[in-house]
Amino acid sequence: MPTISKKGINIPPSPIRKLVPFADQAKKRGINILHLNIGQPDIKSPSESIDAIRNIDLDVLKYEPSQGSLEFRSNLCNYYSKHNIQVLPDDIITTVGASEALSFTMNSICDPGDEVIIPEPFYANYNGFAHASDVNVIPITSKIEDNFALPPIDSFREKINKKTKAIIICNPCNPTGYVYSKDEIIDIANLAKKHDLFIVVDEVYREFIYTDIKHFSILEDKRFYDNAILIDSTSKRYSLCGARIGFIVSKNSDFIQTCLKFALTRLSPPTLALVAANKALNCNGNYIKDAINEYSNRRKILISELSKLNNIRYSDPIGAFYSIIKLPIKDAEEFSKFLLTDFSINNESVMLAPASGFYSSENNGNDEVRIAFVLNSEKLKRAINIIDKGLKEYIS
Amino acid sequence: MPTISKKGINIPPSPIRKLVPFADQAKKRGINILHLNIGQPDIKSPSESIDAIRNIDLDVLKYEPSQGSLEFRSNLCNYYSKHNIQVLPDDIITTVGASEALSFTMNSICDPGDEVIIPEPFYANYNGFAHASDVNVIPITSKIEDNFALPPIDSFREKINKKTKAIIICNPCNPTGYVYSKDEIIDIANLAKKHDLFIVVDEVYREFIYTDIKHFSILEDKRFYDNAILIDSTSKRYSLCGARIGFIVSKNSDFIQTCLKFALTRLSPPTLALVAANKALNCNGNYIKDAINEYSNRRKILISELSKLNNIRYSDPIGAFYSIIKLPIKDAEEFSKFLLTDFSINNESVMLAPASGFYSSENNGNDEVRIAFVLNSEKLKRAINIIDKGLKEYIS
Repeated sequence: MPTISKKGINIPPSPIRKLVPFADQAKKRGINILHLNIGQPDIKSPSESIDAIRNIDLDVLKYEPSQGSLEFRSNLCNYYSKHNIQVLPDDIITTVGASEALSFTMNSICDPGDEVIIPEPFYANYNGFAHASDVNVIPITSKIEDNFALPPIDSFREKINKKTKAIIICNPCNPTGYVYSKDEIIDIANLAKKHDLFIVVDEVYREFIYTDIKHFSILEDKRFYDNAILIDSTSKRYSLCGARIGFIVSKNSDFIQTCLKFALTRLSPPTLALVAANKALNCNGNYIKDAINEYSNRRKILISELSKLNNIRYSDPIGAFYSIIKLPIKDAEEFSKFLLTDFSINNESVMLAPASGFYSSENNGNDEVRIAFVLNSEKLKRAINIIDKGLKEYIS
Repeated sequence: MPTISKKGINIPPSPIRKLVPFADQAKKRGINILHLNIGQPDIKSPSESIDAIRNIDLDVLKYEPSQGSLEFRSNLCNYYSKHNIQVLPDDIITTVGASEALSFTMNSICDPGDEVIIPEPFYANYNGFAHASDVNVIPITSKIEDNFALPPIDSFREKINKKTKAIIICNPCNPTGYVYSKDEIIDIANLAKKHDLFIVVDEVYREFIYTDIKHFSILEDKRFYDNAILIDSTSKRYSLCGARIGFIVSKNSDFIQTCLKFALTRLSPPTLALVAANKALNCNGNYIKDAINEYSNRRKILISELSKLNNIRYSDPIGAFYSIIKLPIKDAEEFSKFLLTDFSINNESVMLAPASGFYSSENNGNDEVRIAFVLNSEKLKRAINIIDKGLKEYIS
């Protein structure tokens, strides 16, 4: 028999989707599953995007330029300028979701065995992209007691060595909901600059913030232009997850030109998706406001419901639409399975994402889950009730 | 300054698109460019695909399952069964074009420093995918004098060592147009099986064959089920290049499960594209026949026109829609640039793909170009005339 690569054997399964087979079995038994496991919003995509698709006028579905059309990248520049970020179309590479943006970034700045420092818990698929590029993730553990704020800068400094190429953060943070302050961003960027590292910031959730804290983008401060790599996407902001349109933005032209070479090898981002994403950028000005209001309401309900539960602890989601919940049990993955295989209320149960997959350190997060508040208020209430009652039955 | 990876510095630029800036400049000067450089068909996409997009009925553009919908994979199984290939939905992973299929394959079977053997010239981006995965391509040179038939099996055997993980071929072959015979496929697959290697066959051009030779798929012979990996795509067959839907097919479940783990990290193939690709699978039965007829006519014209030129040699494209042309000059890339910067007939010129990028051995193919006959007959005639007159002016 031919053999599978070590890389392939060791790549961690996605914690967001690894329990899918159990959810599928539950659905076959007639159980309705409330999906708190995946950041798939139920908010409608912009009508401008759907209409553009429905009115599309073409004979041949052709390749796009590898970096995305000039029109799309110009529209992105307009979008960014409204957010105090001044970039040009040539500073942007369009990618197949933020996923490909991260893959191109890893490949452009790291060789096998190189290291990237990431505060954990972090978006689990960072592990997958690093693994695929034979890059080692060096985690710095942030704590639920601090609401997952940035760990002390010294804890990052201690981990920097010759193999370190970048520090990666997600702001607002998936999976914790934390929003880094301007001071935190500048502190970590200064450290990166001092050590000639890249500072990669995933700002996919930029606009989803529910307190008066103002988002500070890594590209707002020109001092970090050589070091800053912004990862972004239309997936969450415009409920266009299935489009698969992301982008890399950087003023470091050597980096962008390198990403372009990787982009050229796969020829083109998806053309239809680009039509939808392009229209979303100029959608009705209330679209994002309405989405933020909706998530903000859900957050209130989530917190209100969670605060009634005994024995759990949770991170306050200031931004994005996730929270980490610490459960009064040892193995949150086993509990998540239990909810799918052995528990339901009125023929309904909940799918959670076990949080251990969002940590790189072994044995961290085993008693935690990540939940996404992408369901409407009623469903969210039912979901929290199921977790509560499920926990009681599981523990008893 | 932070540094770019060695991988990023050394990744070869795509020969198919590296001259794009010169073409863009020519277009700005008002020159019409006939694109023989890229396999972007001008044949209409199936109306069923376009109609499905125009009639799409959805509120939220959601993620697809990471491996593609069961409906799509079931339809693919139907398609394959008509081609004497018996597979199940679980044998298939839907990917973002054949490009991602090749990336997942490389990552699933190779660790950094491992080797894959590929007869050259080969599809240039194989180099890019291998490079991104730190895999070394070991080329076996095929010859224009043999119309780029499979080199002797012994020349492959000699290159096999402990680091060898796979042999990769493209059948029908991009960039040569050669179609491997059943005997050639069985010979190379037997070698792979004997040495516990994977045999990866890119069958994207399966149906585009212009003589009575019958395509023999690697998955038609059950003896090779453990070793065989089929790479496929809807891009060329259905003129859906911009959709970006490809797939990996294999009866080796360890391999498929490993690919799925890589697929999970990037969540989903593009949803709208999948709608178009799914409909294409069941399009009007004459669609493919008509496309084959059209390419067959173009091939005749191409050969007829090329045969009038002195001092060139070309591969007879039995399949796919490419030919390698050996020019009577030293540097085909310089000539290709010259056509874009310094030559035109009636304000029209031609963009070619320098063939050196389709070779892995240094100094091979420097006097060759690849052309794609994806333009209609009239344009094709004008293009060959431009190459002919351009050569005369360039040489003089």
